[in-house]
Amino acid sequence: MTVQSMPDVSPTKWHLAHTSWFFETFLLKPYGDSYRAFDPDYHYLFNSYYEAEGPRHPRPERGQITRPSVEEIRDYRRHVTEAMVTLLDGAADSTDWRTLVGLMELGCQHEEQHQELILTDIKHVLYQNPLLPAYGKGHPKEVRRAPQLAWAEFDGGLVETGHDGEGFAFDCETPRHKVWLEPFRLANRLVTNGEYVAFIQDDGYRRPELWLSDGWMTIQEEGWSEPLYWRQSDDGWHVFTLHGAQPINLEQPVCHLSYFEADAYARWAGARLPGEAELEVATAAQPDLGHVNDQASGHLHPDVARPGQDAGEVLQLSGDVWEWTRSAYAEYPGFKPAAGAIGEYNGKFMCNQFVLRGGSCATPGGHWRPTYRNFFPAHARWQFTGLRLAKDL
Amino acid sequence: MTVQSMPDVSPTKWHLAHTSWFFETFLLKPYGDSYRAFDPDYHYLFNSYYEAEGPRHPRPERGQITRPSVEEIRDYRRHVTEAMVTLLDGAADSTDWRTLVGLMELGCQHEEQHQELILTDIKHVLYQNPLLPAYGKGHPKEVRRAPQLAWAEFDGGLVETGHDGEGFAFDCETPRHKVWLEPFRLANRLVTNGEYVAFIQDDGYRRPELWLSDGWMTIQEEGWSEPLYWRQSDDGWHVFTLHGAQPINLEQPVCHLSYFEADAYARWAGARLPGEAELEVATAAQPDLGHVNDQASGHLHPDVARPGQDAGEVLQLSGDVWEWTRSAYAEYPGFKPAAGAIGEYNGKFMCNQFVLRGGSCATPGGHWRPTYRNFFPAHARWQFTGLRLAKDL
Amino acid sequence: MTVQSMPDVSPTKWHLAHTSWFFETFLLKPYGDSYRAFDPDYHYLFNSYYEAEGPRHPRPERGQITRPSVEEIRDYRRHVTEAMVTLLDGAADSTDWRTLVGLMELGCQHEEQHQELILTDIKHVLYQNPLLPAYGKGHPKEVRRAPQLAWAEFDGGLVETGHDGEGFAFDCETPRHKVWLEPFRLANRLVTNGEYVAFIQDDGYRRPELWLSDGWMTIQEEGWSEPLYWRQSDDGWHVFTLHGAQPINLEQPVCHLSYFEADAYARWAGARLPGEAELEVATAAQPDLGHVNDQASGHLHPDVARPGQDAGEVLQLSGDVWEWTRSAYAEYPGFKPAAGAIGEYNGKFMCNQFVLRGGSCATPGGHWRPTYRNFFPAHARWQFTGLRLAKDL
Amino acid sequence: MTVQSMPDVSPTKWHLAHTSWFFETFLLKPYGDSYRAFDPDYHYLFNSYYEAEGPRHPRPERGQITRPSVEEIRDYRRHVTEAMVTLLDGAADSTDWRTLVGLMELGCQHEEQHQELILTDIKHVLYQNPLLPAYGKGHPKEVRRAPQLAWAEFDGGLVETGHDGEGFAFDCETPRHKVWLEPFRLANRLVTNGEYVAFIQDDGYRRPELWLSDGWMTIQEEGWSEPLYWRQSDDGWHVFTLHGAQPINLEQPVCHLSYFEADAYARWAGARLPGEAELEVATAAQPDLGHVNDQASGHLHPDVARPGQDAGEVLQLSGDVWEWTRSAYAEYPGFKPAAGAIGEYNGKFMCNQFVLRGGSCATPGGHWRPTYRNFFPAHARWQFTGLRLAKDL
Repeated sequence: MTVQSMPDVSPTKWHLAHTSWFFETFLLKPYGDSYRAFDPDYHYLFNSYYEAEGPRHPRPERGQITRPSVEEIRDYRRHVTEAMVTLLDGAADSTDWRTLVGLMELGCQHEEQHQELILTDIKHVLYQNPLLPAYGKGHPKEVRRAPQLAWAEFDGGLVETGHDGEGFAFDCETPRHKVWLEPFRLANRLVTNGEYVAFIQDDGYRRPELWLSDGWMTIQEEGWSEPLYWRQSDDGWHVFTLHGAQPINLEQPVCHLSYFEADAYARWAGARLPGEAELEVATAAQPDLGHVNDQASGHLHPDVARPGQDAGEVLQLSGDVWEWTRSAYAEYPGFKPAAGAIGEYNGKFMCNQFVLRGGSCATPGGHWRPTYRNFFPAHARWQFTGLRLAKDL
Repeated sequence: MTVQSMPDVSPTKWHLAHTSWFFETFLLKPYGDSYRAFDPDYHYLFNSYYEAEGPRHPRPERGQITRPSVEEIRDYRRHVTEAMVTLLDGAADSTDWRTLVGLMELGCQHEEQHQELILTDIKHVLYQNPLLPAYGKGHPKEVRRAPQLAWAEFDGGLVETGHDGEGFAFDCETPRHKVWLEPFRLANRLVTNGEYVAFIQDDGYRRPELWLSDGWMTIQEEGWSEPLYWRQSDDGWHVFTLHGAQPINLEQPVCHLSYFEADAYARWAGARLPGEAELEVATAAQPDLGHVNDQASGHLHPDVARPGQDAGEVLQLSGDVWEWTRSAYAEYPGFKPAAGAIGEYNGKFMCNQFVLRGGSCATPGGHWRPTYRNFFPAHARWQFTGLRLAKDL
Repeated sequence: MTVQSMPDVSPTKWHLAHTSWFFETFLLKPYGDSYRAFDPDYHYLFNSYYEAEGPRHPRPERGQITRPSVEEIRDYRRHVTEAMVTLLDGAADSTDWRTLVGLMELGCQHEEQHQELILTDIKHVLYQNPLLPAYGKGHPKEVRRAPQLAWAEFDGGLVETGHDGEGFAFDCETPRHKVWLEPFRLANRLVTNGEYVAFIQDDGYRRPELWLSDGWMTIQEEGWSEPLYWRQSDDGWHVFTLHGAQPINLEQPVCHLSYFEADAYARWAGARLPGEAELEVATAAQPDLGHVNDQASGHLHPDVARPGQDAGEVLQLSGDVWEWTRSAYAEYPGFKPAAGAIGEYNGKFMCNQFVLRGGSCATPGGHWRPTYRNFFPAHARWQFTGLRLAKDL
Repeated sequence: MTVQSMPDVSPTKWHLAHTSWFFETFLLKPYGDSYRAFDPDYHYLFNSYYEAEGPRHPRPERGQITRPSVEEIRDYRRHVTEAMVTLLDGAADSTDWRTLVGLMELGCQHEEQHQELILTDIKHVLYQNPLLPAYGKGHPKEVRRAPQLAWAEFDGGLVETGHDGEGFAFDCETPRHKVWLEPFRLANRLVTNGEYVAFIQDDGYRRPELWLSDGWMTIQEEGWSEPLYWRQSDDGWHVFTLHGAQPINLEQPVCHLSYFEADAYARWAGARLPGEAELEVATAAQPDLGHVNDQASGHLHPDVARPGQDAGEVLQLSGDVWEWTRSAYAEYPGFKPAAGAIGEYNGKFMCNQFVLRGGSCATPGGHWRPTYRNFFPAHARWQFTGLRLAKDL
């Protein structure tokens, strides 16, 4: 729980401390009258990127922190949880109640995001180990076939996207606003491992005309010729999962692709990546829920889509894998970041990132909504990232 | 003419050879029946980035090519020019005529782009020299005052942008398409050096809340605390120009900013960067022409806007400096790249770049049009890049 | 016990596994007839640098190995220890006995070297932590004064150095051979913190004439202006020790210097570093034992020299700090590396390293002998490294 | 004459300016009463590494200096030459005469060193060019066979090496001093290309047991599997020379090896590299002169040894290639650097370099003497560097 395998990855211990820090910093310290910090040094150690909260420990060095121990961090968490209960118990009638509830919800949403990151980060750490240890038992034997590929048609026109203010949303999902869309088509399901193998076998990684210039440069520099966690051996492709190394299941959605690979695949397939508004419109119309991280299944790998009700249904619009869109992560017209340090949550990352939609098999159940915008740089692959094809009509 | 000061910069000799290579590769070889290549090795040496044209000399090593000499490249150019004249003379009645004219126009437009790059690249090379030598004489003493800052209002709504097919355009300017715009305001002129000095003096480079996360990281890593080519000495700010080092003229447009700096300045000023569609709409309405590179003036530095006819007029919509927009460089709906190697001209760069609009003082006269889309990564500063403010209405 | 703070440092868990691996690889596998490897993967994971033993896990990634756990490594060690006891019990009358005893002794000496590295590596790991946690309690309050600096004279001439074959030695200490030495003088004690502070205050780190060219470049690049683990605060210099951060004790030997700093200090002091033969001759004559790592004291920091019997005595010739010599680590005339993988122990490192002599406060008691040659690159500072001055007579 | 292909290489223009700067700085400015600097900026631009002469232009950026032009540097040189003539004419009777003559000789020796570097640097620059242009015409067709390999025996014992004060020498060659040598053998000639090809064919670059640890790491990182300037094609090995690319001549001495390669070859051949004292003793006994850079031949590539008078003669002890020794570059006992900035010439480089002996085919005739010590880091290959084998007797 202490090791960090690359700067993007944080140790599990750090995630646990940082989500506690969030409640301490944004709720307990400003609103808990008699709150006493568990340890003043933690403010520095467990700040992620909030410049307004002062200097912080450098991200690439999170894995150097051997003390406090995991047990001390668990004490920290208990301390914060107890103080939160006390704070909320005493505040029900106060004038701060609305503010507190809003921050409490933000803190919980924030923690759900880190629950997903804990899984993706542990997966990356374990993969550095030549022994390829498994995180969890119980990978199911999947026997279902992927649905036949079909295309659903959408009219486009002047539509509205973005969050309308009912229920929780991050600031970057607002305001709701008009967008003009040309008519388009969406694939009824995610691209599968089998389809991606065909791309590889058709020299997909060796044909520059399929790639963005930055993508071509990246795959040369990194030596990529398959998705992250794939390895070819004498008996075919294997993939490292949170349940250990497995022979590849050709019916399951392809996963751990960079934007560059998703984009090249789409070009090879004579299609393109969807825009984020296109996916949002489709999701609002028929939000088929795919496979998310619920504790019941314990299954932490993308799954085959459930059969649809009818041929035109767009499946798996959430869950299984985050879907790369061709939309650069940018502010919506009229966007206003939240005030104070909380405003650093989203707006300051609106540069050189692409929007992903739909949640993944590692996203906690109930965390996602149709307006949800995730974002990563084009080269990132350690999240559960895949794609769905789109076309102009 | 041989030296390369960074990978983004090319030697003057290389520009001269590469623009000749373009005509040789895309016109003379496919259409000049009896054309004989000047030197077969040049195909490898002077390809810029056309993967479809085979392997090429690595960009960062262009400055290592001491042979062929400048004189040999001039011979190469004469050889290509003569062959082009022969080709065009003989083709007037051929079935290829339309194709040839299109490629000829593309080759000329391409060359005009390199004419601008030659100037920006020479400026960068000379700046590496502690002696700060001047490229050209004749920097004018500028005495005009910048116009008073004022805001022009635009209604937005469902507008059309992109090239409509009349006259030349690059493929990325097409197709013409609908965009929904919220009402907005544009500053009547570019941000000036004087205004930017106020930003610096207000600790603009030391306040993280003004910066994108990548921007803040970049200015720490690079140690930036002023625009490229600025230096502070006991008697105030100086700027290196193609006419040598000069005391700063506070009335002139600020120049050689990265996207990060333009964005931070706009945030500090309580405004934002314009979107590319906003600038295109404004330009179509009242295209005031600023100062471009015409041989008459010989003045290669951004200039103060000419006074407008009335207070509401938006000035300098072209010329002087390229204006950073907040629009990520992306394909227009329905975009189709040109066929063949020519199609590598634009589409494959649509990732991690921002659109710039309007041309600069180094852009050849007549090269620009209102639909013109230039693009650079957010950290690039060696082009003549500045900004104009925008606001939501 | 899992974290690695830089490529030179190994996790404690790794040291524990690797010293067990050494016995398994060089004794149990070749000589233990019925020996069964604890885990076949460990052969790859815990090989340090023995090319003859096949591929191995890359050194900079030792800190990525979260499994096997510390408990599993302890099981591994117990497994190896038991098998070693069985092997030696059964081999007393065998023809391999002499070979086994030699390898057993090498394995123990090897383990003692790693005992020292465990301490220096833990110190470095803890120092990455802004909380500056202590490894052990009990840092003594030192009140003794350092002896007055005095110079002992040596005649030089044709001397012999190197190990003569009695008792254990590493291959690089052999053969004993003749060396011609000019007459020289040695300081009676190590350079102290107080003397080094005077060097700093005399702008020692800002005067290029005191430094080797590589040293001057290194201190610019690394931003060094004091020894590793030193920090200046309002109330003076503090030093991080295995017992936590402490105010500096000016009487104690200066420690954690690179060769570059030791060499620059000597030049500033009008002296030079000793050659390794000079120190060996002096040690053979009067081996005053300084402070080593014995479990009784629990004191893991260099100490003030004990007063000598008379003014000319050379003190602390072993213990406290490794003494940099000006001798490049090279083979002695007639040197023959040991046969097989064991021969990779020393000879292949004879390039770009300097010899250090005398052992340190972290060296296990009984490990050192007067012919002992330690070696590190000129920039290394994380070992307990200091210096003694020498002069030509 | 302006381009720099790596930090170790300097542009020809820079060499020309720097050797002029040396006379200006160390003779004309201190001793030429009415001397007026040609251009005050040159003091900064053309200082190589003399810290005592103040700040200087960074070495890796020498290739960025497009102005002053080559013509201006030639004017600078004429200016300095004329002033030197005036200075020396007027000083014949002055008290400074001895000092001036010493500095004059140092300046000339310094310039001869740069004459060699100009050739090695031009060779490296031209090699970056895929066209592989030749520097000079006239590469001779070599038909001689290399002499049969034989071993000359030397008694060793207490010998003296180093310069005795007669005639010119650099400070690092002094003082003459005693060294004890064990009996040894030297090969009668340099290792040939043919012998080195056998090493390559015997998997020399793929067998870690032949290499120093740093060497093995270097050849992995750099991807070396042959000497610099060698390339294998369908019709065998070719080598790039100052006379263009040539088929390899198996009889000629192998050249452009790093220390690592020379050391690995010697180990493979069951021998070792000589120590510098061994070569100096042999040279003093029978200094056969090999092939140096004399303008008559115009032949700038290592050549086959001339046949010896008798079988025991050690051939080519100077010329053709610099011979790597196993001696780290270090100060002789009693070494005192020259006073002032001139003292930075040698002493400050005595770290992480190995001594080379004997001069090369690019060394100006008359420059070398038997006590001459050249030095380069173990990875350097762009000089004319090869080897001669030695063995213990």
